[in-house]
Amino acid sequence: MTLDPVLARIDENLDAATARLLDLLRIPSISTDPAYKADCDRAADWLVEDLKSIGFEASKRPTPGHPMVVAHSDGDGPHILFYGHYDVQPVDPLDLWDNDPFDPQIQDTAKGKVIRGRGSSDDKGQLMTFVEACRSWKEIHGTLPANITIFFEGEEESGSPSLTPFMRDNAEELTAEIALICDTGLYGEHTPAIITQLRGLLGEELTITGPNKDLHSGMYGGLAMNPARVLAKIIASLHDEDGRITVPNFYDGVPELSNELAAAWDDLKFDEKDFLGAVGLSLPAGEKGRRPLEMIWSRPTCEVNGMTSGYTGDGFKTVLPSKASAKISFRLVGTQDPLKIREDFRKLVSAMVPADCTVTFKDHGAGPAGQMSTEDPAFAKARSALTDEFEKTAAYVGCGGSIPIAGYFKTILGMDAMLIGFGKDDDQIHSPNEKYDLSSFHKGTRSWARILHNLTK
Amino acid sequence: MTLDPVLARIDENLDAATARLLDLLRIPSISTDPAYKADCDRAADWLVEDLKSIGFEASKRPTPGHPMVVAHSDGDGPHILFYGHYDVQPVDPLDLWDNDPFDPQIQDTAKGKVIRGRGSSDDKGQLMTFVEACRSWKEIHGTLPANITIFFEGEEESGSPSLTPFMRDNAEELTAEIALICDTGLYGEHTPAIITQLRGLLGEELTITGPNKDLHSGMYGGLAMNPARVLAKIIASLHDEDGRITVPNFYDGVPELSNELAAAWDDLKFDEKDFLGAVGLSLPAGEKGRRPLEMIWSRPTCEVNGMTSGYTGDGFKTVLPSKASAKISFRLVGTQDPLKIREDFRKLVSAMVPADCTVTFKDHGAGPAGQMSTEDPAFAKARSALTDEFEKTAAYVGCGGSIPIAGYFKTILGMDAMLIGFGKDDDQIHSPNEKYDLSSFHKGTRSWARILHNLTK
Repeated sequence: MTLDPVLARIDENLDAATARLLDLLRIPSISTDPAYKADCDRAADWLVEDLKSIGFEASKRPTPGHPMVVAHSDGDGPHILFYGHYDVQPVDPLDLWDNDPFDPQIQDTAKGKVIRGRGSSDDKGQLMTFVEACRSWKEIHGTLPANITIFFEGEEESGSPSLTPFMRDNAEELTAEIALICDTGLYGEHTPAIITQLRGLLGEELTITGPNKDLHSGMYGGLAMNPARVLAKIIASLHDEDGRITVPNFYDGVPELSNELAAAWDDLKFDEKDFLGAVGLSLPAGEKGRRPLEMIWSRPTCEVNGMTSGYTGDGFKTVLPSKASAKISFRLVGTQDPLKIREDFRKLVSAMVPADCTVTFKDHGAGPAGQMSTEDPAFAKARSALTDEFEKTAAYVGCGGSIPIAGYFKTILGMDAMLIGFGKDDDQIHSPNEKYDLSSFHKGTRSWARILHNLTK
Repeated sequence: MTLDPVLARIDENLDAATARLLDLLRIPSISTDPAYKADCDRAADWLVEDLKSIGFEASKRPTPGHPMVVAHSDGDGPHILFYGHYDVQPVDPLDLWDNDPFDPQIQDTAKGKVIRGRGSSDDKGQLMTFVEACRSWKEIHGTLPANITIFFEGEEESGSPSLTPFMRDNAEELTAEIALICDTGLYGEHTPAIITQLRGLLGEELTITGPNKDLHSGMYGGLAMNPARVLAKIIASLHDEDGRITVPNFYDGVPELSNELAAAWDDLKFDEKDFLGAVGLSLPAGEKGRRPLEMIWSRPTCEVNGMTSGYTGDGFKTVLPSKASAKISFRLVGTQDPLKIREDFRKLVSAMVPADCTVTFKDHGAGPAGQMSTEDPAFAKARSALTDEFEKTAAYVGCGGSIPIAGYFKTILGMDAMLIGFGKDDDQIHSPNEKYDLSSFHKGTRSWARILHNLTK
C-alpha cells in the first residue's frame, strides 16, 4: 500500500480533523476530581463512536474507576498496539487562563497556529494524531496496513489505579508485537524524538494531625504542638545540602549515566538557560555536580506538589491548625523500587512525628522507571519515518515524566514500547493556557502514517 | 443608687436579652473577608439602634475599613469607657460545624445551656453583657450610674487597621478615667479573672515565587526550584531545638517572670494535662524549661497560622508549584518591639531565599504586649465585685491572646484598662462550634452591674 496518497489525504483532512479534536476537547474529562466522572465517561463514548466511524470494532470497557476504550481494526499485517489517554489535568488556578479551558480555540501566535485548551497537548491532541492517520489511511486504501489495537485509558492523570488490573484481565486481547505510545514531545522545537528511558513515579500524601481541632493561637500558642511546623520540618529534611534525597536506601538502583549516553546527550546541546528562562528561572536547582539533562532525565527527584494547613483565605486568622498535609511525589530512575521507597519514606516520616502528633498516609500510585531496548528493529524503522517527516534526524532521548504504561507493557504483556510524541516544551501541559501547535497535530498525524508504513512494509 | 433591684431586673430580662443576642449573632460580620463588608455594616447599625433604645446617643462612625460604633450615656459620675468588637472570625472549615454558624441556637449540654454560633463568645455575647447591664440599670433607676462611653470596633479579627487612627482623631471624645474591655475569659470554669498582662501580636504573610507558573513536575522536576521546599526550609528554621525562636534580636525586651508572679501563677494550679487533653494533646510543646502557664502567658511565640502551595484539591496533581505562601504570627511579651521584629524577620527570611526565587511580604498588623498597673484602686473595686458575683476570689492572670487595644488606651489615650470577661476555655472561639455559656452571659451581665456600682459608689 502506497504512502503518498495517504499523506495527501491527511493534508486535505486537516480542517475536519481539527474540528473533531475541538469537539473532544470540549469534554472536561478531569479524572482526578470525582465531580467530572460523567464527563470522563462522555469522552470515552465520544472516542468509541469516532473509532467505529472508521471501521474499528470499538467498545467502552468498565473499570472500578473511569472506563477504558479498546478498539480493533479490520487490517492484516503485524499486530500493533497504540496507547493514549483521554483524561486531562485539573485546570486550577482558573483565573490564570486567558480563555475557558474547555472552550478550545484555534489561535494565531508569533510561532504559528495553536490549538488552545486543556488536554490539547496532554493527551487528546496527541492520541487523535494516530486516529486521524488511521482515518486517512482507511479512506485511501479501504483498510489499514496493520492489525491495530487501540487502547485509551481515562485515569493517566490520577495514578492509573485500574490500569494494571485491566491489562492483566485482558492480557491476550491487548498483547501485540509492539506498543506505540503517544504522550511525549519533540526534542526542542523541531527535532523528532523517541524516548528510550523515562522516570517512574511514586505519589504520596501525608497528613499530620496535632490538636483535634483548630485552636486560637493566642490561647494555645506556645503550649500546643503546631502540625504545620512538624510538616515543614519533615519537608525541609527530605533533601540534604547537595540536593540529594535523604530517604534511606533511596539511591539503590540508580545507575550512573554511561559514557555513550552522556556523549549523545551532550550532542543535543540542551540549553538550560533557555529551558529555565521560559519559566522565569535561571539556575539548575538539582543535585550538585550533575548535568541539567541528567537532573530531568536520569536522576530521581522528590517534589512537593501541594501543601496546605490552617487558614489560607483572604486576610488573616490567628489559628493554630489541627492538621497539615502535603502531596509529595518521587520521580524514579533505573531499577529503583517504588514500593520499597514508599516503605522507607513512610518510616522516615513516622520517625520524625513528635509524640503528640499522628501521621496518616495516602497512596497516590507507584510505577517504576522504564528502559527501552533500542535493538528492536522497530526503533530504527520509526526513527527513519520521523526523520523523513521532519527532515531532521530523530533523537533517542530520556524523559523526566512518568509514563508507567511503558513499563507495564513490558512487565505485564511482555512487549516493547516506543514513545513518540509531538508536544513542545512550551505547550504548558498541567498549567494554565495549555496548547498544541497545529503543526504538531498535522506533522504528528503524517508521522504515524509514515511509521505504520515503515513498520509494515 | 441601689444594686439589688438592678440584679433582679437582669434576672427577669434574661430571656429577652438572649433573644437580642441571637439577633446580633445572625449577622455574619466576618471582618477579614471583603465579601462580608455589608454584614459588618449591618452589625454596626444593629448596635447603634439597640444603644439608642436604651437612651445612648449612639452613632456609626465611618473609617477606611469597617465602621466604629460610639455611644454616650446621659449618666453623671466618673467617666468610664467600655470596649468590645462586633466583628467575628471566619467560619471555615464549615463542614466541622454541627449547625449553621450564623443560625445561632440555645442548646442543652451536660454542663448547662449554651448559646451556639460564631461570635457568641468572641465577642458579641461578651459585649452584650455590658449593654444588658446598662439596660437593666436604666430600667430601674431611669439613668446610668456613670458617664459611660461605649466604643465598639469591627476590625478586631483582622488586625484593627483603622483603630489607632480613629483613636487619635477622636482622642478627646474617647478618653475616660478608665477603660473596661470585655473580650477575655474566666480562669478555668468558675474563677473570675482580671487580666493584668497580655501578649502582643505581629501578623506576617510571606509568598515565595519560583517559576512564573505551575510546572509539570516530570518535565521540570530536579532542575527547577520548588518554592514549597524553600518555604518549608524557612518555617523549619524559625525555631531551634529548644523551641526558641531564631529571629535575630527576638528576645530583646522579653522579661523573666518575677518570683512573686511565679508564685501566684503556681497557686492557680494550672492543669496542663486537662488543658491540652481537651484538644487531643498531652505534652507542652513550647520552650524547654518553661512552666506551661509561662508558655501561654509570658513567653513569645511564632506560629504558622496557614500555609499553602500547589495543588490541594482531591486526588493528585504532579505539579511543581509556582508559589508557596504562609501566614505567620508572633505573640509578643514585655517590651518586644513589633516593628523591629517585623524588620528582623523579613531580613532573616529574605536571606534564606535562593537566588532564583523572590519573596514578598504582607503586613497583617502589629501590636505590642500590654501590662496593667494593678495599683489603680479600680482594680480592687472590680475584683471585689467579681468576687461577690462568683463567690470565689477573682484572680489576676495573664493572657496569651493579643488585645492590642489595651496598649493603645494607655499609649494613645493615657488611660488604664481592665480586661474582664466571662468566656470559658471550651468556648471554641476561632474554631467550629463556638459557644458561650448562658451562665457566662447571665453572670457577666450581673458582674458589670456590680462593677459599675463599685466603681461609682
